[in-house]
Amino acid sequence: MSPLSSSAASRATRSDVAKLAGVSPAVVSYVVNGTKRVGAEAEERVRDAVAKLGYRANPSARALRLGSTEMLGMVTPTTTNPYFAQLAHEVEVAAAKRGFMVINSSSDSSVVTERNQLEQLAGRLVDGIFLCSTVFEPDLRNLDIAGIPIVMLNNRAGIPSRDSVGVDLLHGAHLAVEHLAEHGYDEIGIVMGGTAGDAEDGREAGWRESLERLSLAPGPIARGLFTPGGGYQAMQRLIRSGAVPRSLFVSSDQMSRGVLKATLEAGLKVPEDVAIVSFDGSIDAAYSWPTLTTVAQPLAEMAEAAVDALLSPPHDPVHRVVEAHLVVGRSCGC
Amino acid sequence: MSPLSSSAASRATRSDVAKLAGVSPAVVSYVVNGTKRVGAEAEERVRDAVAKLGYRANPSARALRLGSTEMLGMVTPTTTNPYFAQLAHEVEVAAAKRGFMVINSSSDSSVVTERNQLEQLAGRLVDGIFLCSTVFEPDLRNLDIAGIPIVMLNNRAGIPSRDSVGVDLLHGAHLAVEHLAEHGYDEIGIVMGGTAGDAEDGREAGWRESLERLSLAPGPIARGLFTPGGGYQAMQRLIRSGAVPRSLFVSSDQMSRGVLKATLEAGLKVPEDVAIVSFDGSIDAAYSWPTLTTVAQPLAEMAEAAVDALLSPPHDPVHRVVEAHLVVGRSCGC
Repeated sequence: MSPLSSSAASRATRSDVAKLAGVSPAVVSYVVNGTKRVGAEAEERVRDAVAKLGYRANPSARALRLGSTEMLGMVTPTTTNPYFAQLAHEVEVAAAKRGFMVINSSSDSSVVTERNQLEQLAGRLVDGIFLCSTVFEPDLRNLDIAGIPIVMLNNRAGIPSRDSVGVDLLHGAHLAVEHLAEHGYDEIGIVMGGTAGDAEDGREAGWRESLERLSLAPGPIARGLFTPGGGYQAMQRLIRSGAVPRSLFVSSDQMSRGVLKATLEAGLKVPEDVAIVSFDGSIDAAYSWPTLTTVAQPLAEMAEAAVDALLSPPHDPVHRVVEAHLVVGRSCGC
Repeated sequence: MSPLSSSAASRATRSDVAKLAGVSPAVVSYVVNGTKRVGAEAEERVRDAVAKLGYRANPSARALRLGSTEMLGMVTPTTTNPYFAQLAHEVEVAAAKRGFMVINSSSDSSVVTERNQLEQLAGRLVDGIFLCSTVFEPDLRNLDIAGIPIVMLNNRAGIPSRDSVGVDLLHGAHLAVEHLAEHGYDEIGIVMGGTAGDAEDGREAGWRESLERLSLAPGPIARGLFTPGGGYQAMQRLIRSGAVPRSLFVSSDQMSRGVLKATLEAGLKVPEDVAIVSFDGSIDAAYSWPTLTTVAQPLAEMAEAAVDALLSPPHDPVHRVVEAHLVVGRSCGC
């Protein structure tokens, strides 16, 4: 049992502090919140009393006064994937423009933890929550009970009862495959990240659609986790199978890092032996060597749309789709 | 003004919900907190009343009951640097072992924002805060007023009034320089990230010390931001100056990504033309090509030490130093 517990259990009130310091409760607020200057002696007495009693201001009281907590929450599957880190950063920037701060927590790709995080954030009096769920259909039951709006971010298809924002994955995949085809590659494989649930990922569906439209046979598919290690292992399997295609669409920049490493390690050259178009448009694409040609997700636009949705007056749920665009590096052969 | 404001301003209490639903306040708590099953009809009435009144459970009340908020806060300079992302992840893991969740916020390397984040987290009833400050001596005045312990994490030298945890940068730099010297390189330069304040960074001091001990003249110094772009520009300047040394100690894996890109782009080979030992031991070292030899910070150990310090009974401030170790990749010539 930590010493924190005992202090929290006997939490002092503003009145307790005022009584001990011999000042009015209003003066305590002035000192604690820094909202008004008071005499040096009175301030000293308040600080002594606060320290002695272990007093903490109550955020609910401030929230009631302001009519808002000025704080939004965000839950992402992981802090260590630069894609979500960058998305969280863009959400911070977009929220700051409206005077809101964002606190983040990570579900570690666990549905149970995700649910727990949502409940904790809701209980912590945030004004709303951005959820990058680890699954297609997250468990949002009874969260309405907290009266807190939730916007699904990085959501592919939308869920019926909530606002959501996601990138057009199909269109993004078309851009990638068409660019590889324009280079004259007639064998276009895919390294695809694993997604939760049964639905086919839009990147894979878009790859297949484009090949059909271009009358090209689908190249090999290698699957793995959406991580550098996942891409590395998927590419090693392709190499061992002897069926390395002339070109590859890789479903995330994180996977592409591993694909590049496995390819170069095997003595193959990019783009001379294997051309690559990646997906995300993250800093990983810009600082790989060769630099990655990649389908860039407009993260700032997604963040703005999500903040808009969260702070809008009550409305029917909307699924907002944003468009990706191609950023040309060296990995495709350009 | 958002619609959230009006609902918050007229916040309903548990009694209001109980009255409207025609149940006791205890039954409201059972339903809202999921702590006990009640009849389906009563649950339905409570949920209706909660939705109608926009009721939110009060986290302070729960914290009082438990004697702890079960929640810790963490402030880092940026979410987009994988080093801090990984450190935050390790803190989450270490805190979860003790039953605590962690909420994060990012100061965007601004002292003003950092201070604001600390106040917001303190007001949000966390039990303690991990601070990776953007400066050597952060502004912690009056935060004691909230009675919340703060542990400085990733702190180089400790500050007098707080617990702190940091890696032994001097020793880490010795490992890097000695390893390059063992390869027989007699010209060892440094690519050094910029730090706030006047104090010399331990990595630079350690590099200089080691060279002196080995009776080697210091190689060239190139400075830049602690980012891939910072490393890229620093290395481009070295290349343009024509003074590229045979080997380089680079002060972070993030910088090394940029150093690698600039080097390979200029047609130089790593390690044949320029050997590199990096610092951090992040995933960036493992998934660069060539892989980076790097001085690894023991992030899990740092996180454990920080959680220990934060949850310990009151004690005199301690600066805990952890030791780095060398992880061998291909960039050094091994």
